[in-house]
Amino acid sequence: MPEPGGAAVSSKLVLEYDGSDFAGWARQPGERTVQAELERALAVALRLPLEPVPVTVAGRTDRGVHAWGQVASYVGEPASVLSLNALLPRDVAVLSCEPAPAGFDARRDALSRTYCYRILARRTRSAHERGRALFWPQRIDLDALDACAAALIGTHDFTAFTPTETDHVRFERDVFAASWRPRGDILEFWIEADSFLRQMNRVLVGTMLEVAGGRRSVADFAGLLHGRARADAGATAAPHGLYLAGVRYG
Amino acid sequence: MPEPGGAAVSSKLVLEYDGSDFAGWARQPGERTVQAELERALAVALRLPLEPVPVTVAGRTDRGVHAWGQVASYVGEPASVLSLNALLPRDVAVLSCEPAPAGFDARRDALSRTYCYRILARRTRSAHERGRALFWPQRIDLDALDACAAALIGTHDFTAFTPTETDHVRFERDVFAASWRPRGDILEFWIEADSFLRQMNRVLVGTMLEVAGGRRSVADFAGLLHGRARADAGATAAPHGLYLAGVRYG
Repeated sequence: MPEPGGAAVSSKLVLEYDGSDFAGWARQPGERTVQAELERALAVALRLPLEPVPVTVAGRTDRGVHAWGQVASYVGEPASVLSLNALLPRDVAVLSCEPAPAGFDARRDALSRTYCYRILARRTRSAHERGRALFWPQRIDLDALDACAAALIGTHDFTAFTPTETDHVRFERDVFAASWRPRGDILEFWIEADSFLRQMNRVLVGTMLEVAGGRRSVADFAGLLHGRARADAGATAAPHGLYLAGVRYG
Repeated sequence: MPEPGGAAVSSKLVLEYDGSDFAGWARQPGERTVQAELERALAVALRLPLEPVPVTVAGRTDRGVHAWGQVASYVGEPASVLSLNALLPRDVAVLSCEPAPAGFDARRDALSRTYCYRILARRTRSAHERGRALFWPQRIDLDALDACAAALIGTHDFTAFTPTETDHVRFERDVFAASWRPRGDILEFWIEADSFLRQMNRVLVGTMLEVAGGRRSVADFAGLLHGRARADAGATAAPHGLYLAGVRYG
């Protein structure tokens, strides 16, 4: 929909989803994905049923990962939030859909992404946190976790924290903030960085939990931040504890 | 299992459940109930597979109502929490199972029950709060809600807040505490009373939401607390916002 002046109108969309029943964000044939659901709803809301509206996203979350504040953009007028939420399935909700500066691109223009990983740190599982937090009844040394978080801040090479088979070409990332925050039975890991490698947060959490359990030292963890091999880092924590919390723009 | 001395051993069990897929607490033929699941698991954990262990509960929650801190009792030794949670479905979890004073009865000995009703008070629905909070995009006058809560404290006749067809014989209840607490997008109603009539909390919340929307006065609400008819009160709020938060004993 080009404007009379010629410049294409862009829109910015903030959405949340429960990733439990999705094969992640990115459209894949034969899979239920957030992108496919959103593009289908957008096409109907914008009355363009024959040409699905391609959407660009700030964080391509993996299968099972949740979002509180995912941001997407598309070329076109804003759609009605009420219509979108009526058209979307119950596990996706649009929080806002507003005009954006011409050429706005949710991925390219993002200054940082913030993720939160939630851990249920107690001895018994929970009926309410299943699928929403990692159940971790093992020992957790919070001081060790705090030291790991402090080591994360700054620019590092995260090669050790993403699968060896990769599409990434650059493995350095700028971590602006990282901290562990206990909230009752729930222990949250918050991290803000310019962007993230695939599975980076889950391998970070899996490796830090080894430190928290005394099976790896803080120094060993910090040593991994210099471009070591994936095999040197720890397990990949389950996706259901991870939330894309928000995206920052200029 | 009588003790050598003769007095029967009692056990106290604290549990949480997601009520979404249950027809409430109380066992009913052909229905999935928390009581039936718990008694089945207890019989296996206590190695009494042929004689299900009858359990008494502090709050008989209705279909769709959740619990964070339900308390149940039974005659018998404590069962292993680990075993119980392995035997129970994912939407029920036992938090503790401990020896109780001889003759302990979770219902009769309870001094008070505390419930929380959660409302998602914003304009757009949520992917994460579906089934966990009442979505209420309408106007909410928090001052009016506070005035209603204040009116609730004390001893009142709650006939107006329970179905007309009833098994209750006494309609007075002592409300020890009642308050509305905003927590971000979520507005919580907390109430502690000696005990509750069937559906009482849901009718209270439904009626208070009419006050919050300007469709009923605080004075009218307060007037209902003198044994008025059910027809004079408001709608019954949906069960999925309601949580049995805890039970107090001497």
